[in-house]
Amino acid sequence: MEMFVHDETPTAAVDQREQVVSALAGSVRDLVDATIRSTVADEELLAVRAGVDALVARLRTEQRPGPAGVRYNSEGRSWSWGNAVVGHGNAIAPPLAIDHDTERGRSRAEVVLGAAYEGPPGMVHGGVSALLLDQIMGETASGFKRLTMTGTLTLRYRRPLPLGPVALECWIASEAGRKVTVEASIGNADGVAVEATGLFLVPRWAPLAADEQPEGWRRSAEG
Amino acid sequence: MEMFVHDETPTAAVDQREQVVSALAGSVRDLVDATIRSTVADEELLAVRAGVDALVARLRTEQRPGPAGVRYNSEGRSWSWGNAVVGHGNAIAPPLAIDHDTERGRSRAEVVLGAAYEGPPGMVHGGVSALLLDQIMGETASGFKRLTMTGTLTLRYRRPLPLGPVALECWIASEAGRKVTVEASIGNADGVAVEATGLFLVPRWAPLAADEQPEGWRRSAEG
Repeated sequence: MEMFVHDETPTAAVDQREQVVSALAGSVRDLVDATIRSTVADEELLAVRAGVDALVARLRTEQRPGPAGVRYNSEGRSWSWGNAVVGHGNAIAPPLAIDHDTERGRSRAEVVLGAAYEGPPGMVHGGVSALLLDQIMGETASGFKRLTMTGTLTLRYRRPLPLGPVALECWIASEAGRKVTVEASIGNADGVAVEATGLFLVPRWAPLAADEQPEGWRRSAEG
Repeated sequence: MEMFVHDETPTAAVDQREQVVSALAGSVRDLVDATIRSTVADEELLAVRAGVDALVARLRTEQRPGPAGVRYNSEGRSWSWGNAVVGHGNAIAPPLAIDHDTERGRSRAEVVLGAAYEGPPGMVHGGVSALLLDQIMGETASGFKRLTMTGTLTLRYRRPLPLGPVALECWIASEAGRKVTVEASIGNADGVAVEATGLFLVPRWAPLAADEQPEGWRRSAEG
């Protein structure tokens, strides 16, 4: 199991790279959407494909051998640009920007889900709702003060959720020893579409208190 | 709520377009991966970005106003290229190719999950497992003979699942009237990582038998 990578890039340089990576990933997200919706002729799709392949070759001249992982430096900055939900460099991720109120154990996020997140016609894929909920619930359970792992996740689908603007809410329902129960929902202006309850566990080998955590633990709740 | 679109494209033309769309989306998937893993200089990332933007503009000269939806023709061919898990034209989808044994109510799928599906370092995002499971469970519950909607989905996380080749299994556990209970798992050669139980419902307004279904219902289990 790969773990957290200590990376001595200074925070200022990390921040700058993050901007560049975010800009590229943002354009790739746009390309994912355009690929789904385009109705141009076959020959033009194939010509665009050749263009994509040429850009891939340029990016691959220098690359990591595997996934991006989670990196952190001695200044306390950590980054996981490859994360499937919140990764700035991952075009699969919307990306979700989560606001945490760690003191009250509450979190929320708003995002617009486009054509790439479709399940039933015009609706957010039920599994996409589960994907986003899992991320916000894991982060909330961790509260960035302990390492937690998903134990059980239960999703109750109340009604279909149209593609477009959605909002997620999450809160800690109870805590006992190494067990943290979290509740959450995803919905829109018309109300809640999916409710979720999650049981998160602090592994036996991991410390319970923030000041006993190993370096790089901070983003461990992600995913 | 957008529904299924009757589209009189002949099956042969649909099949040909699907090949072209799949080819382009395959290259875009490769670009998503390369964007995550590339370590080329900032200026080169930004130059690649400009290239991506130019390709997006070419695709958008003719496009659908919204998501791809689910389309079907009078020959019984249906297609949902935008689906977030199985859509051939959606670079977010791996895409999952599901083998159904509708007679026995069983399904399975194998897929390789790369850097784009990362949660914890080197591991499949727990929400991605939920996303793929929701899709295979919905299709299995429907069995392509009735319209079903996800009611409740419960996921039990047994152990982390490394990125790489994974396999999904799914089967109908019980059926009673409008309720279908489905079980499923995702794992790899080392065993099961996540187990799932889902309760799927045939809506009261939808017929129970295959020969009473409206046109275009066939792919309704997707998502």
